[in-house]
Amino acid sequence: LFSVDERMNMLRQVTAHLPNVRVDSFQGLLVDFCRERNIVAVVKGLRAVSDFDYELQMAQMNSTLAGVETVFVPTAPAWSFLASSLVKEVAALGGDVEHLLPSAVHGQLMKRLAERTKP
Amino acid sequence: LFSVDERMNMLRQVTAHLPNVRVDSFQGLLVDFCRERNIVAVVKGLRAVSDFDYELQMAQMNSTLAGVETVFVPTAPAWSFLASSLVKEVAALGGDVEHLLPSAVHGQLMKRLAERTKP
Amino acid sequence: LFSVDERMNMLRQVTAHLPNVRVDSFQGLLVDFCRERNIVAVVKGLRAVSDFDYELQMAQMNSTLAGVETVFVPTAPAWSFLASSLVKEVAALGGDVEHLLPSAVHGQLMKRLAERTKP
Amino acid sequence: LFSVDERMNMLRQVTAHLPNVRVDSFQGLLVDFCRERNIVAVVKGLRAVSDFDYELQMAQMNSTLAGVETVFVPTAPAWSFLASSLVKEVAALGGDVEHLLPSAVHGQLMKRLAERTKP
Amino acid sequence: LFSVDERMNMLRQVTAHLPNVRVDSFQGLLVDFCRERNIVAVVKGLRAVSDFDYELQMAQMNSTLAGVETVFVPTAPAWSFLASSLVKEVAALGGDVEHLLPSAVHGQLMKRLAERTKP
Amino acid sequence: LFSVDERMNMLRQVTAHLPNVRVDSFQGLLVDFCRERNIVAVVKGLRAVSDFDYELQMAQMNSTLAGVETVFVPTAPAWSFLASSLVKEVAALGGDVEHLLPSAVHGQLMKRLAERTKP
Repeated sequence: LFSVDERMNMLRQVTAHLPNVRVDSFQGLLVDFCRERNIVAVVKGLRAVSDFDYELQMAQMNSTLAGVETVFVPTAPAWSFLASSLVKEVAALGGDVEHLLPSAVHGQLMKRLAERTKP
Repeated sequence: LFSVDERMNMLRQVTAHLPNVRVDSFQGLLVDFCRERNIVAVVKGLRAVSDFDYELQMAQMNSTLAGVETVFVPTAPAWSFLASSLVKEVAALGGDVEHLLPSAVHGQLMKRLAERTKP
Repeated sequence: LFSVDERMNMLRQVTAHLPNVRVDSFQGLLVDFCRERNIVAVVKGLRAVSDFDYELQMAQMNSTLAGVETVFVPTAPAWSFLASSLVKEVAALGGDVEHLLPSAVHGQLMKRLAERTKP
Repeated sequence: LFSVDERMNMLRQVTAHLPNVRVDSFQGLLVDFCRERNIVAVVKGLRAVSDFDYELQMAQMNSTLAGVETVFVPTAPAWSFLASSLVKEVAALGGDVEHLLPSAVHGQLMKRLAERTKP
Repeated sequence: LFSVDERMNMLRQVTAHLPNVRVDSFQGLLVDFCRERNIVAVVKGLRAVSDFDYELQMAQMNSTLAGVETVFVPTAPAWSFLASSLVKEVAALGGDVEHLLPSAVHGQLMKRLAERTKP
Repeated sequence: LFSVDERMNMLRQVTAHLPNVRVDSFQGLLVDFCRERNIVAVVKGLRAVSDFDYELQMAQMNSTLAGVETVFVPTAPAWSFLASSLVKEVAALGGDVEHLLPSAVHGQLMKRLAERTKP
């Protein structure tokens, strides 16, 4: 729905008040991105048990490939059911997702979906 | 394999002896379908733990979007391994699924698969 | 920490505004309690995946023993981490659980814990 | 509820028609029992996902300690909800578990529970 | 990435030192393959809990269809994070997977990926 | 098996080469310990999926009680089956756990178990 540049811009908007956040992108392997920048650990959010099994597999692969460790931070329980794919699907079918998104992101999502359904 | 109308007809056949069952279909969001008909709760079957994680996510989204609650009913254990996708796959490869389906559904599945493999 | 009678009283207090709730207790098997009262289904809350495995086992046993079905209702996600044993443990160690309990229950829990630690 | 000897006798009764089954018992570590008898693999039943996590841990420990491998055989789905602890609990509360046990075992369970509740 | 014949050849290479291994392939249902050869049991590796749920479903279907039992052998824990799809993905992005594969397989994977990216 | 002081001494021995590790103990709630020392996050190891469900519950409770976040670090896969309770149980039954423990800890475990079984 959004290009990498569009996503990075949205992330920059919603993290603008956090001085120690930098938004970046990469192609190829995450561990190569980490090695080039001397990044020793990756932080990931965890929502549900089903996330955990896959993320653990990725974490152990990245540790084996390049010594990059992964630390997991659990989602606040009130938002544990939110997945971006589900939010996009609900919005595309006309559901009201305004309370589930930062308002800047919500505006752009509405605009993009309106463009898509135009003749 | 079957259109929405074909599926609804099969459901009507196998529930014909249950006077309080009505078969319906919808487009768009389940919660919109519920709101239009003043439906306050959705009943879903649960087979395995892996179903639960995804269904819980959907249930919490629907509760948040429109106050529609979901109640889960566990499958009889003897049928807990049955998924419609698996049954269709086995039948397409020539496996005998007669004991796994209502006979009206089995007949239509065999007929459809025979049509598909015709030259 | 609380007797059956004390728990029933607390449940009556916090459900007093719900006219269709009746609080009762039983000894022996849940399915016998259901049979004597012509109860055909039991409703249980589900918090996490780990609850589900055990509850599914109980549900299938009760269905086999007496045809009593169990329907599961998921917890609101914001409270999915709350277990009564955890709340009691935190309170016993001096943690503030006021925001996690109905206020009538909180008062009685504080009183009981104070009695217990008296010389 | 039953001593090791009583359990072994019940197992011998219910496997009497299987000529290649031998019932034995041991004290100490399973891997030592295996080593003394040149047993290279242990077969265990698996009922639910929650069994699997613990059994996998034991299997990997036994493989590390003594090269003893564990192979898992899944329960027939119709019995996946049966745990001996649950059956004993239901029977002790007066539930009818006759259809859940071999008849020889059922008889001895009923007799033992009757002895226990005698004055 | 590899045809069935290429995969069978790689399997033959890495199992050449095991005299009781035979590599074969089939089309259609696994249970039909078993029936034609009087195979009574299938052995499958299990890595993670998320594997188990799906494999249990398949095992119970195969048992129901043709009495073919499935026995599961857990992966050595040091390799529990390895999935062939993940290894291929990492290799395609330039990651070093030499320590994760038998050397004969690694050579052919590198060769195939090099052919694919040629102009 | 070991007192809090004995455990702290063993932890100090096995972390002696890590200058930024300090071993401490507390009574009462973890979140109170954190508050008194301005600790904003707790790091915990995660082995298996079954750990995760319980740890997530604790993490969300601690976040709610005092804003203390929990970050999870996965175990190296080769040690994912190791739990201290299992190691102690195996050792008590005479199993060789030398390769599963730091040698200083192993020595003290052997000594303690020998004392316990003395007449």
